[in-house]
Amino acid sequence: MQAHSIEPAQAQARRDYYERIDKQNLTPLWEVLGRLVTSTPTSPAVAALWRYAEIREPLLEAGRLISAAEAERRVLVLENPALRGLSAITQSVYAGLQLIMPGEVAAAHRHTQSALRLLLEGDGAYTAVDGERTTMRRGDFVLTPGWTWHDHGNPGKQPAIWLDGLDIPLVRFFDASFSEHSSVATQMQAKPEGDSLKRYGTNMLPVDYQPARVSPSPVFVYPYERSREALLGISHGEPDPHLGFKLRYVNPATGGSPMPTIGAYVQRLPRGFETRPYRCTDGTVYVCLEGSGYADINGTTHSFGPNDIFVVPSWNTLRIHATADTHLFSFSDRPVHQALGLWREARE
Amino acid sequence: MQAHSIEPAQAQARRDYYERIDKQNLTPLWEVLGRLVTSTPTSPAVAALWRYAEIREPLLEAGRLISAAEAERRVLVLENPALRGLSAITQSVYAGLQLIMPGEVAAAHRHTQSALRLLLEGDGAYTAVDGERTTMRRGDFVLTPGWTWHDHGNPGKQPAIWLDGLDIPLVRFFDASFSEHSSVATQMQAKPEGDSLKRYGTNMLPVDYQPARVSPSPVFVYPYERSREALLGISHGEPDPHLGFKLRYVNPATGGSPMPTIGAYVQRLPRGFETRPYRCTDGTVYVCLEGSGYADINGTTHSFGPNDIFVVPSWNTLRIHATADTHLFSFSDRPVHQALGLWREARE
Amino acid sequence: MQAHSIEPAQAQARRDYYERIDKQNLTPLWEVLGRLVTSTPTSPAVAALWRYAEIREPLLEAGRLISAAEAERRVLVLENPALRGLSAITQSVYAGLQLIMPGEVAAAHRHTQSALRLLLEGDGAYTAVDGERTTMRRGDFVLTPGWTWHDHGNPGKQPAIWLDGLDIPLVRFFDASFSEHSSVATQMQAKPEGDSLKRYGTNMLPVDYQPARVSPSPVFVYPYERSREALLGISHGEPDPHLGFKLRYVNPATGGSPMPTIGAYVQRLPRGFETRPYRCTDGTVYVCLEGSGYADINGTTHSFGPNDIFVVPSWNTLRIHATADTHLFSFSDRPVHQALGLWREARE
Amino acid sequence: MQAHSIEPAQAQARRDYYERIDKQNLTPLWEVLGRLVTSTPTSPAVAALWRYAEIREPLLEAGRLISAAEAERRVLVLENPALRGLSAITQSVYAGLQLIMPGEVAAAHRHTQSALRLLLEGDGAYTAVDGERTTMRRGDFVLTPGWTWHDHGNPGKQPAIWLDGLDIPLVRFFDASFSEHSSVATQMQAKPEGDSLKRYGTNMLPVDYQPARVSPSPVFVYPYERSREALLGISHGEPDPHLGFKLRYVNPATGGSPMPTIGAYVQRLPRGFETRPYRCTDGTVYVCLEGSGYADINGTTHSFGPNDIFVVPSWNTLRIHATADTHLFSFSDRPVHQALGLWREARE
Repeated sequence: MQAHSIEPAQAQARRDYYERIDKQNLTPLWEVLGRLVTSTPTSPAVAALWRYAEIREPLLEAGRLISAAEAERRVLVLENPALRGLSAITQSVYAGLQLIMPGEVAAAHRHTQSALRLLLEGDGAYTAVDGERTTMRRGDFVLTPGWTWHDHGNPGKQPAIWLDGLDIPLVRFFDASFSEHSSVATQMQAKPEGDSLKRYGTNMLPVDYQPARVSPSPVFVYPYERSREALLGISHGEPDPHLGFKLRYVNPATGGSPMPTIGAYVQRLPRGFETRPYRCTDGTVYVCLEGSGYADINGTTHSFGPNDIFVVPSWNTLRIHATADTHLFSFSDRPVHQALGLWREARE
Repeated sequence: MQAHSIEPAQAQARRDYYERIDKQNLTPLWEVLGRLVTSTPTSPAVAALWRYAEIREPLLEAGRLISAAEAERRVLVLENPALRGLSAITQSVYAGLQLIMPGEVAAAHRHTQSALRLLLEGDGAYTAVDGERTTMRRGDFVLTPGWTWHDHGNPGKQPAIWLDGLDIPLVRFFDASFSEHSSVATQMQAKPEGDSLKRYGTNMLPVDYQPARVSPSPVFVYPYERSREALLGISHGEPDPHLGFKLRYVNPATGGSPMPTIGAYVQRLPRGFETRPYRCTDGTVYVCLEGSGYADINGTTHSFGPNDIFVVPSWNTLRIHATADTHLFSFSDRPVHQALGLWREARE
Repeated sequence: MQAHSIEPAQAQARRDYYERIDKQNLTPLWEVLGRLVTSTPTSPAVAALWRYAEIREPLLEAGRLISAAEAERRVLVLENPALRGLSAITQSVYAGLQLIMPGEVAAAHRHTQSALRLLLEGDGAYTAVDGERTTMRRGDFVLTPGWTWHDHGNPGKQPAIWLDGLDIPLVRFFDASFSEHSSVATQMQAKPEGDSLKRYGTNMLPVDYQPARVSPSPVFVYPYERSREALLGISHGEPDPHLGFKLRYVNPATGGSPMPTIGAYVQRLPRGFETRPYRCTDGTVYVCLEGSGYADINGTTHSFGPNDIFVVPSWNTLRIHATADTHLFSFSDRPVHQALGLWREARE
Repeated sequence: MQAHSIEPAQAQARRDYYERIDKQNLTPLWEVLGRLVTSTPTSPAVAALWRYAEIREPLLEAGRLISAAEAERRVLVLENPALRGLSAITQSVYAGLQLIMPGEVAAAHRHTQSALRLLLEGDGAYTAVDGERTTMRRGDFVLTPGWTWHDHGNPGKQPAIWLDGLDIPLVRFFDASFSEHSSVATQMQAKPEGDSLKRYGTNMLPVDYQPARVSPSPVFVYPYERSREALLGISHGEPDPHLGFKLRYVNPATGGSPMPTIGAYVQRLPRGFETRPYRCTDGTVYVCLEGSGYADINGTTHSFGPNDIFVVPSWNTLRIHATADTHLFSFSDRPVHQALGLWREARE
């Protein structure tokens, strides 16, 4: 609505009118249109950074306060400071840190929500998906796609801590949550470890395999060892001025995103490199796997080091300055933006 | 979290702990998990019905209280009674009734939000999209896809009233709103009326036309006259027990939905027909174009007649009893559910 | 192989060698490479035109020489003059003229070959596909997709003549012919006439309809009345200099070609219009539905009028001069070229 | 056409008629229909096997008779015994053995034909595609997709011999051959060796990479070392009774075939395993990489060992008996059959 000056009587008449129609569950669009249809995104989320050193201790404390069995999943949710109470790090994405102590298991369940895991410490814990177990090492990116049975365990001697990324707020928004508990806590191992990666992840597919029209990656793990090697392998020539050397994880059976609602990326920024200002519509969660630097988000600077996690809301301007050779993992709901024709980026 | 009884001291220790980590924007998942990952959808939206006879008068009153120019769009938003203040009829979808008085125009703008129009009364008003004008008649389903320039006008002698359906809450959720005003209120007519329908809507396409990977229908209007004839044409044999005779509007260049975020449907229920209980995850807005009947939504009955509008939230059980030969238009964000692998239905 | 002069002894040694390896089913590539991998296409097919006036009489004579029952299909194949004996008008496409006398039927069968029909005279004959009968009028483009049961009949009083276009040579090349005869000559009418067009052909689809990954159009007829109206409707502004006003027939459920192996087109050239030189890799069969003109193919001029049929082989240069408002139907295997990344065109 | 007895006069009348219309390039369909539309495929190709031990010597002899420079490509074409003169091993596919002697190069050119290479002996020769060189080892499957610049060289000390598989007959059939010679024999190395595999072949893709609608794999090499490891990795449990353990090579950016016209496969048959009778429409070329056995094709038995090559025409029944742990590479035009809806298989 454009600005118009109106007379007091007219203003009063409108207020009376608004009150009357309110009882009919009617609202005048012209009073809110400017907030609904903005010229550029105005995310209610804010930028934030969680220092691993500062949240590790509280997380271990949770290990003493509540058992994995009681918690079902012993996770501290990283809540966006401007979206408290919503279990959301951006409007559509959830992030949390999960702890499994030696000897514990997180019992099998399944739900329509899609999840990723990124191991931060405690090599040797496992995630099992649909009967296949994957032992996780630091930096490994592991999937538990929507409606797959999954459980976790830590047969090792050290606490295992990983980042959980889910589309919980998105599934809540679409009112599409379904879930089930398994009758057994720990799935039988129906396939040998590594089976999916060999079967689907070597630029080959079983001859009769046909992915569904909408389907997650049949590969459940993207080992950091391989991703890191690829990253180093392509890090020659000029880095992209806005992104450095950046790869996206793909579903090898389609070339699409690992899961329909979640995209994941890893990038390398050589020591001393400064990215140029970059904005995109998908609010993004970053995790530092190696190195250190400064993330300038809409003009505020956040220093980061290994395992630190920060979030860049939609259309916030991001600049990163790497003070060492740096590897950043990131994830967001970009595949949804792209599927709906909503994705935009701006490169200055 | 499963129910466990804990001792008072332990409970207090947890409360203390929650308070401490709260300052770090951390929240214990186990206290909220049951509400985040539900076994079936638990939409906060509720069923509701707006009787056209009761909202037509307030709408005409708006015509006296505010000019179309001042309002930019003179619309009364149909707000879900349980989602007041959010300009939402379901969590993701917006619906409103727009009024254009004789001689008025609604000035050209464009935005990333996608919109549909369904004319309810006042044949002769027009919508113009990207330089092509479409004169609307009752029941016509008209598109103004995301980021297309569009304006409206009423050169006739009667007020024109139509239903607006948009993905405003969805685009807000994804923080992806962009918009622009045109320097001219009314677009030049660059193409003759009916051009798109002839060019794209007769089971033929221009020989060089190639739709983008994500793209709305190039056809801007689905005249009710044609849809109605199709509906009558296929209404032989047994109606589907849950849906009657039901068609979905398609993008003729892809077979997909008319717009990436909005699906639209029309169905015929013969006089006396009662549909069997049906649920789906996409909360849906219905408009009665012809006939009358009763909609039983989760056990509550709503009677409806021509131009009445009702909303069925996600996973609510719907039964319809047609007391006359009835035509219902409906729309929802089903294409999004399907693109993300979240869509489910249950037929009893 | 580049030209090299070699000594007689060496030449003889090679000839001896070639003879020896010939017994092992081995051939030296270097003796044939230049003919296998040419710099531009060198189709063995030649341009040709069949004047309807000259082939109609022999076709009617066939009606006296052999019964439809005996012939199974009473068709005169239009053989490319340079490909005699191959039942081919281009290397991959078959064309023929079929005659059904009043009261005759062509019995039901099905085969993996895809077929189109274009009625040239004798309104009132029908094609039945999978239980649905379509009465054909002049210019109607009718499909009998691969592996659909189809039969024909002529309940009228005049001989019915139509053009058959099939992918017979293509299916033969891929060694993929399967066929079956029906136990009944004439299919039961399982659906009312016009059912498919109403169900799939009005920019709507049945709500549960999902096309297969590779599938022909669910619409079996594209009435000329509608195509002609569309053609007239878009014939404003400047015609494309190479194509005039040209539309392609599409599968309304996918936007793809009517059948996976056959594309079909219709174009309008206003009286006096001359197209600029055009070449493409798909050898194409043209049928004049209205008007008259001259087709210049690689420098040779062919005059044409209503119902005349001509073929333009791959990469031949085509220019058309319309001496009246002219409508040309055409078909080819272009969708195959496009699906395989082989299609090219050149516009001078 | 069904069998009918006709009188001599009638037969003569028909012969006279056929002679007359022959001049008009018209042919009676009913005289050939049975041969055009067969109830099952009747490929003119026959089964055949080339023993590597018997063709290696003639190939090396070619190395003395003609230089690589003179030959452009020094290849002996494996011609199907029933298709001599056509440079075809099936109706649509070409196979040959290429020899490059130490120090030789095969100069850069490009063509619309797609090619695969499978190194049989002489580790160390290279293929360069669009500026990236790949050193080949035995069993490596290397692509030179249509219209990519490619050259080869042998910097080693041993002759290099590989299998070439191309779609030459297919491109000839569609009259779509285009080719160019490069001005330089050997391409500059624009990228380090292994670049594509790291960039596209590790279940990741460059963040901005978008494959074209029809596009070959961006990965140019599928090293046998990796494929072999995958094959061993999945060879647990029961082998498929018709196929053993079989994988297909995929384009990691789409999940589709490595090239639009050529599919490639590798399978493992444990020692003593006998496959059950299997038929498919795509005539297929097999190469034994490891092991030995008997291939029974339509009842005739062919023994095979390492590097032996055999062809199974369309719809021939294949049974394989492995007398040692056996790895078979195979390729065909199956992706074309599938894209056109023509592919069928039968498993007894």
